[in-house]
Amino acid sequence: MSEDCVSALQASLGAAVLSGDAIPERHYSDATGHAPCRPLAVIRPISTEQVSTAMRLCHAHRCPVIPQGGMTGLAGGAVPTSNSIALSLERLTGATEVDTAAGTLTAWAGMTLEATQHAAESAGLRYPVDLGARGSCQIGGNIATNAGGHAVVRHGMTRDQVLGLEVVLADGRVLNLMNSMIKNNAGYDLKQHFIGSEGTLGVITRAVLRLAPALGDTHTVLCAAVDYAGVVKLLRRLRGSGLSLEAFEVMWQDFYAMSCNWSAMAPPLDAGLPLYVLCELEGDESRLQGILELSMAEREISDAVVAGSKAQARQLWKIREATAEFPSRLAPINFDISLPIGIIGEFAAAICESLNERWPGCRSAFFGHIGDSNLHLTVDANSLPVNDAAAHHAIESLVYGLVGKRGGSISAEHGIGLLKREFLRHSVTDESLTVMRAIKHALDPRGILNPGKIFTSEPIAMSALA
Amino acid sequence: MSEDCVSALQASLGAAVLSGDAIPERHYSDATGHAPCRPLAVIRPISTEQVSTAMRLCHAHRCPVIPQGGMTGLAGGAVPTSNSIALSLERLTGATEVDTAAGTLTAWAGMTLEATQHAAESAGLRYPVDLGARGSCQIGGNIATNAGGHAVVRHGMTRDQVLGLEVVLADGRVLNLMNSMIKNNAGYDLKQHFIGSEGTLGVITRAVLRLAPALGDTHTVLCAAVDYAGVVKLLRRLRGSGLSLEAFEVMWQDFYAMSCNWSAMAPPLDAGLPLYVLCELEGDESRLQGILELSMAEREISDAVVAGSKAQARQLWKIREATAEFPSRLAPINFDISLPIGIIGEFAAAICESLNERWPGCRSAFFGHIGDSNLHLTVDANSLPVNDAAAHHAIESLVYGLVGKRGGSISAEHGIGLLKREFLRHSVTDESLTVMRAIKHALDPRGILNPGKIFTSEPIAMSALA
Repeated sequence: MSEDCVSALQASLGAAVLSGDAIPERHYSDATGHAPCRPLAVIRPISTEQVSTAMRLCHAHRCPVIPQGGMTGLAGGAVPTSNSIALSLERLTGATEVDTAAGTLTAWAGMTLEATQHAAESAGLRYPVDLGARGSCQIGGNIATNAGGHAVVRHGMTRDQVLGLEVVLADGRVLNLMNSMIKNNAGYDLKQHFIGSEGTLGVITRAVLRLAPALGDTHTVLCAAVDYAGVVKLLRRLRGSGLSLEAFEVMWQDFYAMSCNWSAMAPPLDAGLPLYVLCELEGDESRLQGILELSMAEREISDAVVAGSKAQARQLWKIREATAEFPSRLAPINFDISLPIGIIGEFAAAICESLNERWPGCRSAFFGHIGDSNLHLTVDANSLPVNDAAAHHAIESLVYGLVGKRGGSISAEHGIGLLKREFLRHSVTDESLTVMRAIKHALDPRGILNPGKIFTSEPIAMSALA
Repeated sequence: MSEDCVSALQASLGAAVLSGDAIPERHYSDATGHAPCRPLAVIRPISTEQVSTAMRLCHAHRCPVIPQGGMTGLAGGAVPTSNSIALSLERLTGATEVDTAAGTLTAWAGMTLEATQHAAESAGLRYPVDLGARGSCQIGGNIATNAGGHAVVRHGMTRDQVLGLEVVLADGRVLNLMNSMIKNNAGYDLKQHFIGSEGTLGVITRAVLRLAPALGDTHTVLCAAVDYAGVVKLLRRLRGSGLSLEAFEVMWQDFYAMSCNWSAMAPPLDAGLPLYVLCELEGDESRLQGILELSMAEREISDAVVAGSKAQARQLWKIREATAEFPSRLAPINFDISLPIGIIGEFAAAICESLNERWPGCRSAFFGHIGDSNLHLTVDANSLPVNDAAAHHAIESLVYGLVGKRGGSISAEHGIGLLKREFLRHSVTDESLTVMRAIKHALDPRGILNPGKIFTSEPIAMSALA
C-alpha cells in the first residue's frame, strides 16, 4: 500500500521525490538524536501545489506523512517511521515580501529564521523571534512548534508574530488564511489551530509575520539577586520602568559557577551568590542605573554590572550560553518546563532536594527565561550511580510529576513530539485530551499527519467518548 | 421538547432559571437593537457547576442555548430566538485573584471589564483592554468576541491577554485550561478555539488574564497629516521612536469637522485639512517633540498640538469620541473593517467615490484605529434619497464587496454574529468555511450552542464535504 503511494508520488512529482538510498540522512532524525529511521521516501516540494498533490495522494493511500523543517526540534516531532513518508519543506523558499506600511513580512515555510531576520532588517525592521538554531531552523517549523527563544518576555512567542497562514490539510485541500491585519474577527481564527500543533493538523506552507521596529540602544546588565524573591521584585521593577525589557534570564548558583569555570572566565560578579539575572533592555541608561540603585538599596540585588561595550555584553551573554557546551561536557537530561513565575524559586529548591534525596551527589543546573515563566533544568546523568534508560525515566517522572502537581507545563517551548507524549497527562486533563483528539479527528480523520506525535491515542470524535 | 427542557432546568437549578414574563427585557436583544425576542427561559448560573448542569440538560433535550454577557455586542451575537434558552453569565462573579509576581488576574466570566481594570489597578498593575462599554461589557463576552478597543496598537486584542480559560462544552463537560504561564506548548493550545468564537463552541466561565505594568507619563497629541502617506510615515516614526504608542487614531476631514461642529468646540487644529491623527504615547516628551519636528520638516504633518494638561487631553479625545453621538444625530450605518494599513487611505477614497456615484450627496464619516489596521466608516442613512432596508443592504454589499476584493476583513473587532453572516464569504474562503463548520461539528455536533450565529450553514464533518 505504502509502496504504491511512493510510485504514485513519483509519477506526479518526479524529482521532488527521493526514495531508498537516495534519501539524505538528515531526514532520519532531528536534533534530539532520537533513534534515526529512514522513511519510505522524502518529498521535497517547491510549491504549495506540490504539497497539495503530495497530501492528496498520501491521503488516498492512507500513508503516514511526517512534515519536516530544519530538523532542529528538541522533542522528536519530525522523526519519521519506516512506513511513513517525510515531507520536507526545505525547498519551499520563494520570494519574501516586506510591507513596511503594515510592518509585515510574507515568508515561505522553508525559509530559515536567520534569513527571515535578515529580510526584516533589510527593510529597517525586525523579526523579533530569536533562538540558537536560527541558521537552520525554518519558519514553518517555528510556527508548527510555536517556537519561543530569547525575546519572548517582550515580543511573545512565534504565535504572537503570526498574522496569516497558508496550510495544506491532510486531504490536500489548501487553506488560505493569509491575513495581514492586526485585527480580524471574521469567523473562527483558524490559523491558531495549526500554530504549535507540531504538524499533526496541517502542513504550513506560507505565513504573514508581524515585524517589530528596529532595536534602539540596548543595555546588558548582570545582577546578583539575594534570593528568588529579589529576582521577582527586580523583574517587576524593570517591567514597570518605562524601559523595554528584551530578555530576563536567570542562572542559579551552580550554573553560573560551572559556566565561568568552563570558559576560564574571571566571574564578572562573585561566584557563590544565590542567583544571577542577565537582562537586556532598550531605553535610557540613567533610568536603568536608577532602578539598579533602588533595587540594591532595597536589598533585592547585592551587586550588578552594566556592560560598557558590545564586547562586554557578549562576554556576559557567554555565561548564559554555556548550555551549548552541555552535550560535550555533560550527559544532559534536559527539561523545558514552565510554572507561575512566583513559585519557580521554591520549585527549583524542591526539585534539587528530591533529586539529591534519591540520587545523592546528583548534579543539576537551573537556568531559564524566567521573565516568561520558563525554567530550564539539566541533570547530568554522569553524576548518577547508573546512567541508563531506567534512571532517565525515573528522573523525568520525578520532575514532570512535580511540575504537574504545581500547575506547570511539561513543555514551555519545545513541544511534546515523541519524547514527552507519555508525560502529557501531567499538564493536560482527560477532558482536554479528548478535545485535542476530537480536533485531530475533525481535521485529519484518517490520522495520516505525523501520527503518534503529541499523543499516542487515535483521533476520535468527541461524541464517541461521551 | 423545549418546554420539557425548561422544566428539567427548573428542577435542577431552581431560582437560577427565569421563564416567561419573569425574563427581564435586557435578555431580549443586544446593543444593536436587533429585533428583540423573548427566549423560552433565561438561566443565570452562579457557578461553573450550574453552567455545566445547564448545558448537560440542554444538550440532552437538544435545546438551543444563547450565551449572554453584558449585551453590549454590535453584531447581534447574543440575540436569542423564541425557541432557545438564554444562558446569562451576569451572576458568575466570584472572587478575583491577582498574582503580582506572574502579572496575572483570574476573573469570572460575569465580571465587567471596568471591575477587572479596577482589580488590576488595586494591585498596581493594569488590564490594558479598554472600550466604551467598559462599565457593562463582561470579561466572558470580551473573550468570546475577542474584543479590541483603544489600546490594541500596543497591547493587542483580548486574545493576547488570555493565558487560561475554563470552558463548559456543549454537552456540559468542563474544560480546565486555566494556564497562567506565558509559555506553554503542552499539546494543542485549546483556549484559542474558544476566543472569538462568539459562544458557538463553548461557554467561557473563567479566565486567567495577563496584566501590564501601570501606565507611566503619557502624552496626547493631535497632528494634521498632509495626506495618508504622511499618516503611515508618522506611524512608523512613532513605532520606532522608543516611545510606547498606546493609541493611534485617525480621523478624516469630514469626521473632524462634524465633531468640532457638534461640540461647538474651536478646532484645536484648523478644520479643512486632509487627515487628523490623535496619538497617546508613554515616554519622554522631548523625544516626542523631536519626532513631531522631524515629521513636520519632512512635510508629513503640517501642524500638531500636544495637550498641556489632562483637561486638554480630554478635549482632544472628545473629538474622536463624537461617535457616541452618532445614534442621536445621524441614522448611522456602521462598519468595522480592517485592511492592510498601507492601502486604507486609497480604500477610503474609493469607497467615498463609489458611494457618491450611486447615492449623490451621501454623507459618510471615516475614522478608526489605523495603527491596528482597523477602519470604521459610518454612512448617514438620512442623507440617502430613500432610507430603507434595501438601501442599507445595498450599501453593505458595496462596502463589503470592496473590502473582500482588497483582502480585508468585514469584521475587525465586532465579530460576525447575526448581522454579518451573509457577508462572511467576502473575507473567508469556501475551504475556511468548511473547516469552521468541521470544528463546530467536532465540538458541538448537535449544534445547540448559539445556532445561526457566524454562519447559517449546519455544522458538518469535513469528510462529508470532501
